[in-house]
Amino acid sequence: MDNFRVGVGLWCVSFAADRFLPTGYRAKKTVKEQIELVSKIEGAESVDLHTSDFIGIRPKEILKIVHDNGLRVNAVNANIFGDPLFKYGAFTNTDKKIQRKAIDLSKESIDMAREMGASISSLWPGQDGFDYYFQNDYYYQWDSTVSAMKEVSDYAPDMKIGYEYKPKEPRMFSLISNAAKAVLLANEVDAENFGVTLDYGHALFAHENPSESLCLINRANKLLNIHFNDAYGNWDDDLIAGSVNIWSNLEFFWYLKKTEYNGFITLDMFPYREDPFHACRVAIEMIKKFEEIVDRLDDTAIKTLQKQNDAARILEILMKEVLR
Amino acid sequence: MDNFRVGVGLWCVSFAADRFLPTGYRAKKTVKEQIELVSKIEGAESVDLHTSDFIGIRPKEILKIVHDNGLRVNAVNANIFGDPLFKYGAFTNTDKKIQRKAIDLSKESIDMAREMGASISSLWPGQDGFDYYFQNDYYYQWDSTVSAMKEVSDYAPDMKIGYEYKPKEPRMFSLISNAAKAVLLANEVDAENFGVTLDYGHALFAHENPSESLCLINRANKLLNIHFNDAYGNWDDDLIAGSVNIWSNLEFFWYLKKTEYNGFITLDMFPYREDPFHACRVAIEMIKKFEEIVDRLDDTAIKTLQKQNDAARILEILMKEVLR
Amino acid sequence: MDNFRVGVGLWCVSFAADRFLPTGYRAKKTVKEQIELVSKIEGAESVDLHTSDFIGIRPKEILKIVHDNGLRVNAVNANIFGDPLFKYGAFTNTDKKIQRKAIDLSKESIDMAREMGASISSLWPGQDGFDYYFQNDYYYQWDSTVSAMKEVSDYAPDMKIGYEYKPKEPRMFSLISNAAKAVLLANEVDAENFGVTLDYGHALFAHENPSESLCLINRANKLLNIHFNDAYGNWDDDLIAGSVNIWSNLEFFWYLKKTEYNGFITLDMFPYREDPFHACRVAIEMIKKFEEIVDRLDDTAIKTLQKQNDAARILEILMKEVLR
Amino acid sequence: MDNFRVGVGLWCVSFAADRFLPTGYRAKKTVKEQIELVSKIEGAESVDLHTSDFIGIRPKEILKIVHDNGLRVNAVNANIFGDPLFKYGAFTNTDKKIQRKAIDLSKESIDMAREMGASISSLWPGQDGFDYYFQNDYYYQWDSTVSAMKEVSDYAPDMKIGYEYKPKEPRMFSLISNAAKAVLLANEVDAENFGVTLDYGHALFAHENPSESLCLINRANKLLNIHFNDAYGNWDDDLIAGSVNIWSNLEFFWYLKKTEYNGFITLDMFPYREDPFHACRVAIEMIKKFEEIVDRLDDTAIKTLQKQNDAARILEILMKEVLR
Repeated sequence: MDNFRVGVGLWCVSFAADRFLPTGYRAKKTVKEQIELVSKIEGAESVDLHTSDFIGIRPKEILKIVHDNGLRVNAVNANIFGDPLFKYGAFTNTDKKIQRKAIDLSKESIDMAREMGASISSLWPGQDGFDYYFQNDYYYQWDSTVSAMKEVSDYAPDMKIGYEYKPKEPRMFSLISNAAKAVLLANEVDAENFGVTLDYGHALFAHENPSESLCLINRANKLLNIHFNDAYGNWDDDLIAGSVNIWSNLEFFWYLKKTEYNGFITLDMFPYREDPFHACRVAIEMIKKFEEIVDRLDDTAIKTLQKQNDAARILEILMKEVLR
Repeated sequence: MDNFRVGVGLWCVSFAADRFLPTGYRAKKTVKEQIELVSKIEGAESVDLHTSDFIGIRPKEILKIVHDNGLRVNAVNANIFGDPLFKYGAFTNTDKKIQRKAIDLSKESIDMAREMGASISSLWPGQDGFDYYFQNDYYYQWDSTVSAMKEVSDYAPDMKIGYEYKPKEPRMFSLISNAAKAVLLANEVDAENFGVTLDYGHALFAHENPSESLCLINRANKLLNIHFNDAYGNWDDDLIAGSVNIWSNLEFFWYLKKTEYNGFITLDMFPYREDPFHACRVAIEMIKKFEEIVDRLDDTAIKTLQKQNDAARILEILMKEVLR
Repeated sequence: MDNFRVGVGLWCVSFAADRFLPTGYRAKKTVKEQIELVSKIEGAESVDLHTSDFIGIRPKEILKIVHDNGLRVNAVNANIFGDPLFKYGAFTNTDKKIQRKAIDLSKESIDMAREMGASISSLWPGQDGFDYYFQNDYYYQWDSTVSAMKEVSDYAPDMKIGYEYKPKEPRMFSLISNAAKAVLLANEVDAENFGVTLDYGHALFAHENPSESLCLINRANKLLNIHFNDAYGNWDDDLIAGSVNIWSNLEFFWYLKKTEYNGFITLDMFPYREDPFHACRVAIEMIKKFEEIVDRLDDTAIKTLQKQNDAARILEILMKEVLR
Repeated sequence: MDNFRVGVGLWCVSFAADRFLPTGYRAKKTVKEQIELVSKIEGAESVDLHTSDFIGIRPKEILKIVHDNGLRVNAVNANIFGDPLFKYGAFTNTDKKIQRKAIDLSKESIDMAREMGASISSLWPGQDGFDYYFQNDYYYQWDSTVSAMKEVSDYAPDMKIGYEYKPKEPRMFSLISNAAKAVLLANEVDAENFGVTLDYGHALFAHENPSESLCLINRANKLLNIHFNDAYGNWDDDLIAGSVNIWSNLEFFWYLKKTEYNGFITLDMFPYREDPFHACRVAIEMIKKFEEIVDRLDDTAIKTLQKQNDAARILEILMKEVLR
């Protein structure tokens, strides 16, 4: 079977900071330097950007750098989280003027995506959620998210909009915190071009089995985009792909290959301390390895044993086929 | 505002066992003894039963005991989890004959509920889920759950069927593991009488804010039944109501009173070590206290502060109004 | 390097029940049948028993069955959790008469262990802990645990006593809930023969890195016994060894082989739904595989990279050496 | 009983950033402005600083501002986490020159603390830990932490050094991740002036009952410092004190008042979105309320019921005494 094309979110190779070291774990790179760095990672075919990457540089210029480096743009995502304006929410903001800015920025991200030759804009409204009991009107939060997403979807029927769910961070509770909520939202928005961006580590953080979430989203025909990384399952760790889980990763690729999904698998990692080039390189090697292994697995045997619920025999097959 | 009527699941006052002490933490009681015990708990107006409570005793006899003790039956739930037959699943079982038994037993529970003068059958298919990677076909699990729930709903349009979600236990992963999945399921089943049983502790265990889950379910018009208890949020602890959380509980009642829900609040606790009578009595006192406090809260002030996202001022109001 | 000897806790192949199915997922087997079953599992060299296995059968008889089946006894553990008497605690019980029974039963387990030719008694006081805020005097719980463990250790200086820590279950909070607490306890008991039983899944459940816990315990010279299984890390899942984690398991064996530990690795699994024979067989194959792989890893390369903190390069080595 | 004195960590009212908004949720304030702001919070009597607060301002100048505003300094903490130099660890760094800098900075913090009239330096080595399997030599990490802490303790026998444990963040796993590890470390360092800084939210994040941790630390005579806030228990949320838990908080003060601890209770909150002044004011009101309530509780009744393990009756007392 054909393998998936792999890309890298520019933020993976950019500046990485946290609340204890807001000035960052390494020096800032320009967008040009970031793109050049990605181009050197074997197997990386695309980049994902944020609207905030376009500050101080014209889109055409970015596009030229991308093409000159043999890459393409997979997505341009709206940065609707990294501005204090949105601290109480983007689409859920009780201040309609701020909500409007979030919607407008989302539309801009779509315009930019189109201009970049990309087909997707991922929306991760990290500030949409709540921190304290009694702080929010949950009905309002859902209603305003639905109406905003309808407006954004209607704006560009030719472009895919992937809502990215995540349980928590930076708010204590995100509104669209798990796969099923994302599907519920997509069902209610009810637009062909609106669906879900599935981030493997977000699924783990939501205490989901990522494969089951993949099937849930795919069953609803809402799978638009994949972010990839690894995690211990109690935070959005954004670790190197394949560094924590093996069986879960393999199951994920096993199910993913059976979907119609033909988009990119985009690395969404935060190598705070690791060399980003090296971290991404190993992550992509890992993805290629997962694909190889999955291609080799005896599907008929596994499916037969699934009907018998025989976990022990399935594990035996995996052990023998996967572990050297 | 009128308060909610409160009931007690018979299992709260029955035998309590676990895997390390399967013979139980206390002596078994007959159904009659259990009902009599509930009748002595101040504030308890109803009982919930399982189909397995009807073994060796005729429904009419149970009904007489219930009425003689001044109670009514709120729900009869199908015990589709406590038989090794269902170990690999009830509605999701790959063996169609076993799935059939689960469906038939669900219908029986509805018949029994009707005979008991109850309006609800809660279905908690605890064995529907998965333990190991690659063990299951998640599409099959969803499809078979949907079709089974359609059949059960169609069987008795006059009766309410509440699907009870829970993240885990006894399987490592339950299929319908959170509120949004339960709503997704209900939307797909698309029957007026099919909805969700919300268990407060299950919501906590799913890392949900129970009030947000309540709103999510209610917004979809699928709230049919409430199970109540308390928990630390990392397991289905089934502790005495109000014993762990205060703000979360108050927020839950605050939002619950604003819904159309007019059913019972049913205690679903597992007092392994506590005297069940005493545990239930305190739980009901706690519920009454929550209702009193919520009635006293200044809704206008809170709603105004919610629009301003002012968590600190809301907390100040709560502190002054709630803590003595 | 020589491999570890592997054993099976008899409970792995026995009756398995839970609170929803206390009558069990399969028929009960006699101790004789359990031992015979273990003897057929390739690679299993020992069994672990509980004091409760000796009811209705003389120790000599059990020993004969063990030997006739080519096995040996590794440990006899005190069942100080499976009796309602201990519901509020074994060593921490506020009723001194009950605490006395727990101590006496622990001594009995040691006597039985000696009689069986075993060297270890593992103590897992599952009921020692607390459920509710304000319920317990934590000072009393620690003090009474320390004094009880001193008495038990003094009783049999020739026998090893391994305290098994676990975060939770059946109590909401276990007293000795993590590796460091177990070492603290062992340091305070300060007896050569008293130390820690490390259960791999309990470490995961305690949100520990099991290898780090192993090093912590070993650094204090308190590692006496190993229980093995696998888990998702949010409950004591007791799954088939190797079924969830690969890197974590390999790291664990990598560190374990560098310790002086020369005892058994004992399977402590709860195959509720799986055939116990098959589950244990695959688990032991998995252990053998882990040992093979660990023997092959280039320790010098890994240790050099550890000094450079180079996680990406270490992962690359693992990927190439481990994944086929 | 006398109440505790309350202080505010300057970082509570300073700049707050996170990885998605490293430029901060609000404008930076000077140290002078921060101190002035704290002085206006009713009930705040002290401030805690970090070594990094002394950049560009002489200690004497800070001290004058503190005194002019009617405050005192409780602690000066070493910032051994907010510099990329320490990204692979402070005391555990495999580069001995970097470890030396961490030790030297810790000594500086002590000198500064003394100069400020403070008695404590808290050490939170946030970068000491690990992210990936096989990445670190855990023995080395423990050994180097112990030796570094011995050196720092020896440097200033007249000053208290409180090691602050935390499970995770910014590393995936902190080395000293829970209360028992901190006590183990303190026992091994074995210096009168070296002990533990207990952060209430870190205890919750470590899945501890904070009161039990308090007793554990106090029983070992290692309680030197208290940081206070609130949290949901799955991250270091640093929320407003009293905003999540009531019973847990009350139990904590109940046990705290029974210790010899007579230091400050220092707010360690991160009000990213809230007005810091208001957040701290409510937090201190909450602390005062907890102290009032705890003073009113009938200790004899509670202790008697503790001996009977009667959680239900204890809860009834709490409900009646605490909830209005």
